[in-house]
Order: sequence, then structure tokens, then C-alpha cells
Amino acid sequence: MSDAGAGSYVEQGEFRRDTNYITTRITADGSEGYPVEPGRYRLVAARACPWANRTLIVRRLLGLEPVLSVGLCGPTHDKLSWTFDLDPGGVDPVLGIHRLRDAYLARFPDYPRGITVPALVEIGTGQVVTNDYAQMTLDFSTEWAAYHRAGAPDLYPEARRDEIDELNREVFREVNNGVYRCGFAGSQDAYDAAYTRLFTALDRLSERLSTQRYLVGDTITEADVRLFTTLARFDPVYHGHFKCNRSKLSEMPVLWAYARDLFHTPGFGDTIDFAQIKEHYYAVHRDINPTAIIPDGPDLSNWLTPHHRDQLGGRPFGEGTPPPPPHPAERVPPIA
Amino acid sequence: MSDAGAGSYVEQGEFRRDTNYITTRITADGSEGYPVEPGRYRLVAARACPWANRTLIVRRLLGLEPVLSVGLCGPTHDKLSWTFDLDPGGVDPVLGIHRLRDAYLARFPDYPRGITVPALVEIGTGQVVTNDYAQMTLDFSTEWAAYHRAGAPDLYPEARRDEIDELNREVFREVNNGVYRCGFAGSQDAYDAAYTRLFTALDRLSERLSTQRYLVGDTITEADVRLFTTLARFDPVYHGHFKCNRSKLSEMPVLWAYARDLFHTPGFGDTIDFAQIKEHYYAVHRDINPTAIIPDGPDLSNWLTPHHRDQLGGRPFGEGTPPPPPHPAERVPPIA
Repeated sequence: MSDAGAGSYVEQGEFRRDTNYITTRITADGSEGYPVEPGRYRLVAARACPWANRTLIVRRLLGLEPVLSVGLCGPTHDKLSWTFDLDPGGVDPVLGIHRLRDAYLARFPDYPRGITVPALVEIGTGQVVTNDYAQMTLDFSTEWAAYHRAGAPDLYPEARRDEIDELNREVFREVNNGVYRCGFAGSQDAYDAAYTRLFTALDRLSERLSTQRYLVGDTITEADVRLFTTLARFDPVYHGHFKCNRSKLSEMPVLWAYARDLFHTPGFGDTIDFAQIKEHYYAVHRDINPTAIIPDGPDLSNWLTPHHRDQLGGRPFGEGTPPPPPHPAERVPPIA
Repeated sequence: MSDAGAGSYVEQGEFRRDTNYITTRITADGSEGYPVEPGRYRLVAARACPWANRTLIVRRLLGLEPVLSVGLCGPTHDKLSWTFDLDPGGVDPVLGIHRLRDAYLARFPDYPRGITVPALVEIGTGQVVTNDYAQMTLDFSTEWAAYHRAGAPDLYPEARRDEIDELNREVFREVNNGVYRCGFAGSQDAYDAAYTRLFTALDRLSERLSTQRYLVGDTITEADVRLFTTLARFDPVYHGHFKCNRSKLSEMPVLWAYARDLFHTPGFGDTIDFAQIKEHYYAVHRDINPTAIIPDGPDLSNWLTPHHRDQLGGRPFGEGTPPPPPHPAERVPPIA
């Protein structure tokens, strides 16, 4: 989740993420009052946000576009909410609202926590159903299975779920959230500890990925999606803005080739908008970047270089096939 | 000059450096009242400061240590002045003052501008003579010639002075000051323009140095000293802190090899204290780094890798020889 000010805090110098979400689930059997149904919900995301980025990738990989439309908030937000400032008139054309907050208040008039993306909103009522991003992509894989495209990969295979869950916990704690722990450290000691934890974890992942193409098994899974969205932001944002600067991603050969391999895989790189990513972090976090000036670097053309990871074998989509290109309305700008 | 708050300003978004200095010169003939004389003056510098770093390098290369002692201020300073906080009791053992400012006020009781390093102070009177860093190193080469060590290089050869002066002007305007223009830009437009200017100049210098080992002729000169002190700070500071991030120095092959070549040359690398450099910028510039947290990266061990620049020929010290190792009291910590 990327929130709009509320939700996280610093305790004894260390950044802590508020992990209380709206945990209502959209399920195949409708047991929580929200059944899976084509056209009933709208995914609200922002290309800038790493947590929302997961949902955009999984939706693409599984081919959920025809049954689950997407609303995209702009890269910056004010203290109150993410907004639909990319849309004509600043209004989401389906939900008819300016701010994502309106969907939260429609369900919980006194909603006290951060307004976060991704969120799933019931179109008919205009109410948010869930913003529990970690469960959301798993449910895309399982509860929405009846609507997967032909050839969709199995991102959460039953036989490997324990392994994926364990890795996801580690990657969340040490990497996805670890970069924030560096950037929002409230003291030098807290930062130093966060930096060591982060690069220790990245070294461990490099080791794991030096002999296998993907994190779990020989196909892409949910675990790869979750690591990828942090790696994609590493050099353009976390390296400088969050002081995660032992080295750039592009200076860690295994992780860098792994990240490019995924970037070149349909469904991953075609969700990445580097300009929005940079604008989000540098413009929103005035407490660590008071000028709000957005760096012009780094040169990102290196993402397009060959990765040679296919030499490790692996079948990205398993028995399945890559997704077709994104709908023209959902295309991201090419790397300059 | 690195100053203590005063002296520079932003005009229409662009950073402008106050280039008014105390221009009194110490000369061989004493024509300005301050004759060159062994033991009469003290150089006050700070290892952190790129402008002061020039004087430390040239003093080493020319072997002026026995006739010109050095006082070293700590990496941070308050609004009033650089201070001698590295010395026992926080007092310079020769000048007997806590703050460099005291030497400025001893000469000019109402001194209105920034208190900057490097400064030359007359020990007997405790008065600053000059803080005009650009003239200072040239005078070390010319006015102090009678006291150069045997084998000292000619850093400002008469036959090449026009070329050196012209290059120095360009390097000052586009690179030495260019990184500050990026870091202290007051608007996105000013930053964008500064970024383009800086990397255009670095590309031009890369081109020049792709076929010749040094900037002018085939030996080290004043021009190399001036470029080197900015390059040494590029990856640890300017890349992240000043958003000079199209690439790291270590990603610009020609400049990177050139910088390492100089770093490995006695008199250059042995004046560089990366920890003090990082502490200075990140702790002092609260306006762009409000947390004052100092990044733990980058890994700087890459400075010790072979540079292979000797394949381009060149005679670093011309007819002369390298300086001996620094006096133990003036040694910098090794790269971790």
C-alpha cells in the first residue's frame, strides 16, 4: 500500500508500516458478501506505487482485464487521498469520483486510516471492498480462476504455496518494506541497521537466483511479482531517495539480470512507468526531499539490454503462454 | 571555498556562488606585505571541502609540508564558522583558536562574508591573509617555488598556462560549481538545465581524456588537481545528495579510470577522507537532507581497482618524482 500520509509511524527511530487493512475478500462463493463477478468491481491502482503495481502485473498475467477494469490515480497525492488527476476533469469515468477517499468514505464514513492503493471498489455501490493488497493478488490467482485467460500461468501453485508464502514474508519484511525502513529511518542508528538488513537480504536473494531463473520452481510465481516491483524502483528511487546505496541494482549482476528478465516478460515491464514512479516518491515525500525536485537520472536504457537468464532454463509461463500486449488505453510510455 | 552559510544565493532558481574573496597574496617579493617565508603561515583546510582539498594536494605534490603547516577543521560546521573540533580541546594547536572565524575577525573585525576554507593565516598576528582558493594553489606553484621539494612536478608550466587557465575556467563553471548548481537548484527547470550542463561537460572531458592520460600535456597539472577533487566526491555525495545521477562516476569508464589513476598517485588519494566528505555534505545541508542521516554507501573499494591508464603513456611527475608518504599525523584512514 502507498498511503496518503496516515498509517505509518516511527518507533525508536525505526519505520513501522501500519498493516491494518480492510480485509473483506471478494470470493468465488461470495461468502463475505462480495462474489466474484465480471464487471462488478473496479481495481483502483497507481502505476507509481509498488504495492499497487503487483495487482497490475497479476491482472495482466492472468488476463483479468475483460472482467476487472482499472482506474489509475496519478503519481502524486495530497494529504487526504490519491486522486484521479490523470482522467479528464479529474474524475474516474466509471466511479465518477475525484478522490479514492470517496470510495472509502462511502463504505466507512469515519474511515480513520490511510487511503491506500490498490483498492477494489464495488462499482454499483461506489464502496471500497478491500485494500488488502497482499491478499488481493492471491485471490486473483485463486478466487478469480474461472475468469483467467486461456494460457494463464499458475502464479500460486498449490504444491509450492508454503514455499511461496515463506519467501513472500521474507521479501516483504526485508526488501519490499526494507527500502522504506532505510528511507524513513528516524535516526542514524536505525538507518544503519536497516541498510545492513536490506543488503544482507539482497545478497541472499542473489545467491538463490544465481543458479535458478525464478524464485520458486522453474516458472514465474507470485513471489517473483513481489520482488520485481521493488527491484524496478531500486535505481530510479530507492538508491538515492531512500539511501539504499551500497550499490545500484545495475551493479548487482544476478539480481539485475533477474529483474531485466522479468521486465522483458509480457505483463511485467509493460506495467512500469518510470516517470510516474520517480514523480511519486520525490514529490510526495517532502520530509526527505523538501525541494520536491525530481532527479533527471538515472539513464534507464540499460533495462533494455540482454539478460541471458534463459541459459538457466525455466519456463516463464509453465504450461501456459504469455499475455497479449496491453490494451492501447493501458500502455505505458516507452523508456526514453 | 566551502563556507559556513553565507556567501551564496539562488537567483531565478539558479544557484550562484559568491566569488568575492580576500585577495591579498603571499608573494616571493612580499609586495603585498606578506612575503613567502617558512613557518610564517598556517594553511587552514578541511578534508571534506573540495576547494580546500586542492590546497592539500598541491602542498603534498610540491613538498611544502616543512614550510607551511596545516590546521584541519572537522567535517561539519555551524552557522558561524568551521571549527577545530578534531583537535584536543577543540583548539588549533598553533593558532590557539576554536573557530576559523576568529582569524577572519582578527584582520577584519566586521568581516561580512562567509568564513571559508581554505584560508592562509599569518601565525604571528593570527590574521587571515587570504581565502582566495583559486589563486592560492597557483601561488604555491609559483611564489613558493624556492621551497619546493627536490623532484616537485611543475603543476603550472609557463608554456601551458593559457591552456590550463582556460580549462580551469570551464571545469570550475561546468563541473566544480556545476554539481552545486544541480544540488542547490531552486526549481525543477533550474535543476534540469544544471543537470544537462554538467553531464554535457563531463562527456566532453571524457572525450578529451579518452586519448590522453592527463588534461594538459603528458604530466599532472593544476587542471588535474581541480577536476580530481570533484570526481572524488561524485559517487559518495554528488550522485545522490546533489541529484547528479545520470550515472555514477564508476559508470563513466574514461573519467572513472582517470580518477582512479590520480587517486593512486601519491599526493592525491592520500588526501581523501571519504568519511569526512560524506559527513560534511549530508550533515551540513539540512535544507536538502533534513534528517542529516549519512548514507552508508556506496561501496568505495572500487577505487582500489587497476586503472590501466599507463597504457596511454604520460609521465605523471614529468622530470620529477612522486612525493614520499604523508607524515603520520597527516594520514587519512584507508578505504574500509
